[in-house]
Amino acid sequence: MHFTRPDTRGDRQRSAALEVLEAALDAVDPAAALRRALNRDGDTLWVAGQSYDLRRFRRALVVGAGKAAAPMAGAVEEVLGDRISDGAVTVKYGYTAPTARVTLYEAGHPVPDSAGVAGTQAMIALLDGTGPNDLVLCLISGGGSALMPLPVPGVTLAELQALTNALLRSGAPIQALNAVRKHLSQVSGGQLARLAHPATVLALIVSDVVGSPLDVIASGPTVADSSTFGDAWDVLVRYAVLEQTPLSIRRHLERGLAGEVPETVKPGDPALDRVHNVIVADNALAAEAAAARAQALGFNTLLLSTYVEGEAREVGRVLAALAREIVAHGRPVPAPACLILGGETTVTVRGAGKGGRNQELALASALAIQGMSGVLIASLATDGTDGPTDAAGGLVDGGTVARGEAAGRSIFEALAANDAYTFLDSAGDLLLTGPTNTNVNDLMAVFVGEPA
Amino acid sequence: MHFTRPDTRGDRQRSAALEVLEAALDAVDPAAALRRALNRDGDTLWVAGQSYDLRRFRRALVVGAGKAAAPMAGAVEEVLGDRISDGAVTVKYGYTAPTARVTLYEAGHPVPDSAGVAGTQAMIALLDGTGPNDLVLCLISGGGSALMPLPVPGVTLAELQALTNALLRSGAPIQALNAVRKHLSQVSGGQLARLAHPATVLALIVSDVVGSPLDVIASGPTVADSSTFGDAWDVLVRYAVLEQTPLSIRRHLERGLAGEVPETVKPGDPALDRVHNVIVADNALAAEAAAARAQALGFNTLLLSTYVEGEAREVGRVLAALAREIVAHGRPVPAPACLILGGETTVTVRGAGKGGRNQELALASALAIQGMSGVLIASLATDGTDGPTDAAGGLVDGGTVARGEAAGRSIFEALAANDAYTFLDSAGDLLLTGPTNTNVNDLMAVFVGEPA
Repeated sequence: MHFTRPDTRGDRQRSAALEVLEAALDAVDPAAALRRALNRDGDTLWVAGQSYDLRRFRRALVVGAGKAAAPMAGAVEEVLGDRISDGAVTVKYGYTAPTARVTLYEAGHPVPDSAGVAGTQAMIALLDGTGPNDLVLCLISGGGSALMPLPVPGVTLAELQALTNALLRSGAPIQALNAVRKHLSQVSGGQLARLAHPATVLALIVSDVVGSPLDVIASGPTVADSSTFGDAWDVLVRYAVLEQTPLSIRRHLERGLAGEVPETVKPGDPALDRVHNVIVADNALAAEAAAARAQALGFNTLLLSTYVEGEAREVGRVLAALAREIVAHGRPVPAPACLILGGETTVTVRGAGKGGRNQELALASALAIQGMSGVLIASLATDGTDGPTDAAGGLVDGGTVARGEAAGRSIFEALAANDAYTFLDSAGDLLLTGPTNTNVNDLMAVFVGEPA
Repeated sequence: MHFTRPDTRGDRQRSAALEVLEAALDAVDPAAALRRALNRDGDTLWVAGQSYDLRRFRRALVVGAGKAAAPMAGAVEEVLGDRISDGAVTVKYGYTAPTARVTLYEAGHPVPDSAGVAGTQAMIALLDGTGPNDLVLCLISGGGSALMPLPVPGVTLAELQALTNALLRSGAPIQALNAVRKHLSQVSGGQLARLAHPATVLALIVSDVVGSPLDVIASGPTVADSSTFGDAWDVLVRYAVLEQTPLSIRRHLERGLAGEVPETVKPGDPALDRVHNVIVADNALAAEAAAARAQALGFNTLLLSTYVEGEAREVGRVLAALAREIVAHGRPVPAPACLILGGETTVTVRGAGKGGRNQELALASALAIQGMSGVLIASLATDGTDGPTDAAGGLVDGGTVARGEAAGRSIFEALAANDAYTFLDSAGDLLLTGPTNTNVNDLMAVFVGEPA
């Protein structure tokens, strides 16, 4: 049972909705997902249709980083036991768990710190001298990039952070930011795989990026990078941050342009020949599990997208529009119906209220379905933490607005102040799970009617 | 053939997309829709499953207003010919057409004028003395409210306009605005039906309101109104516009509160007993026609919603997310796929560029599908006029951004400046139809792949 709130109010539709969301969270629990992905039969390890003969390997090393790295390390230990020779994995402060053979390093996230540098150095030390008979299991999850912060020689974390801030202020898109950062890291852009070469590398990945692009998740430490020093330089010029760029960084990029320091790992590089990247959990897995449970519960179910992005409140209105069509015309599926969507929305903060993208999405959809009966809309942060709140999201219906207003709240003021938490709390419509130890972005669901 | 641009570039997918959109426009052509809705067999007129014995009626009168009223009047004349005794219908300046028995009045829209008042008075004069043996055909379409502007006695059009502006500035939602306006009109809120009583009234409606709520379209002249003088007064108080309300309007509302002037027509009023409201065309009809044509062309097709509202560029991103899911996972339907949506988005104008909601939606989705192949996204204003431009919308693909940028435009600048027209024009991706003489809001479509 994940949800501590809301209660189901004896309502079968609400109870079914919570069951659907729980199925999704269960599916993407990092340890459970890893146990499902790794199938061991004696000396043979099967992963995503590929087999590894464990007798072939002299050593099995475990490296990696991310907020879910501790339970992932635990699950790998369960499966491989004493076949693991050694391990160095970095987790966020407090996100630790008992491990037998893998050493866990705690470090800063989202702002990287020197403990993260130390953890990464330990990991690299472990990879020093790996040979063709070594198997390196690389555990990657959300936060992995900040938790493996090893800048190129001569550049400090503070300088890297200063440039990142300047780029964010300049409005540079995330792709541009990534091109720069990969060229200032010793790990990103396939470089971790190059450090492990010629070992066999099995990267096991919990994706916190919409669409699960391998080169973006944790800055792609085991994946080819198509961006170049030239691209990185162009970003600084295009977004006019060259003057604010620390001299050490300019120097490094200039040396890169001159071919004096190695590029990130490019597609086709032999360093990637023995690398197998496997997504063990992502938004699609969560959405599929939700859809399967909804279907099993008797809802006519469609999984519409796992790529949803956009302003949270506007996406909430679109979900309401989907609900209305089912109610009015029984399309795209007749009631009892469940539509599942995944992705990650954003909030343009204008007010000083309390909330998060999922709560705001839910509140906006509550306004758009006000007074309707038989409709339930959920929006859930799969990590259990939506914005800077203790809630994971919201679960709203046609009575949400009335309940909140009866408690003295104004829906219009709540939306204007980005104060969805307070309104949904008053209406009894917050979703609370506590930390789930996973993050595969957000899940949204529309329910119309309840199954017979 | 509706579209003068873009050309299909010899591309089968583009050609299919235009065919799908044309099918939608054909279905909601007001004259064609009326001819389909009215089936005459000698002396029997069939409408929406109900029959009228024309021999029972002494007279058949045609009244109404709207931007599509002229072609609607023409179609009614085609069907009923000399059975029509007389008619008075108000159209927008320039939106006229030859008619034989129905007199067309041209008037101001969207700002009502004295010509509209005169047209409405002519219509009311025609209804004076109607009896149980009269049949009144009431033709309603978009703009009908502004084109039937008859304020209650003592209130001028200018005063009504002043209050409307004050309410709009106050942020009052459209429902609140409507409650006030219905109580200051002699026609809205079922009052036209009361004027026609005890005649049989057949209202034939082309809906320009999302979801086709009968009491909202043209302010519901033949439909019960659940709002009261009390509600109207509460709106003025709640949105703090009482001080700006002209004295004549306050007097009238006060007399209404005191029961000295009649309420709008309430549900259950006998004046509505012989009223039959029939939607002859609306967004759902357009969306269904589009979906049917897409299916016939071989696309796996889903009609997702006809209730889409929200900020245009955010809805555009959601459409792109739907396309991505089909490309990546073949969900909710495998390619070749077509998803149809309808509704009406809005644009929060921040820049000084040229565009409209459909063009901006298309441009935002173009950015989100940049570089993808096999995806086409369309957004179309069914009246052929998207914003203050000569375009009806946009039809974009994964190459739109590159084409526009090759022509020297910046997609980011275009979005920031609300300048979608200029960018799409450069990319060759504007949809142009010229005026379609109908308005059933907007149609959106996502195409992935082309049928075999």
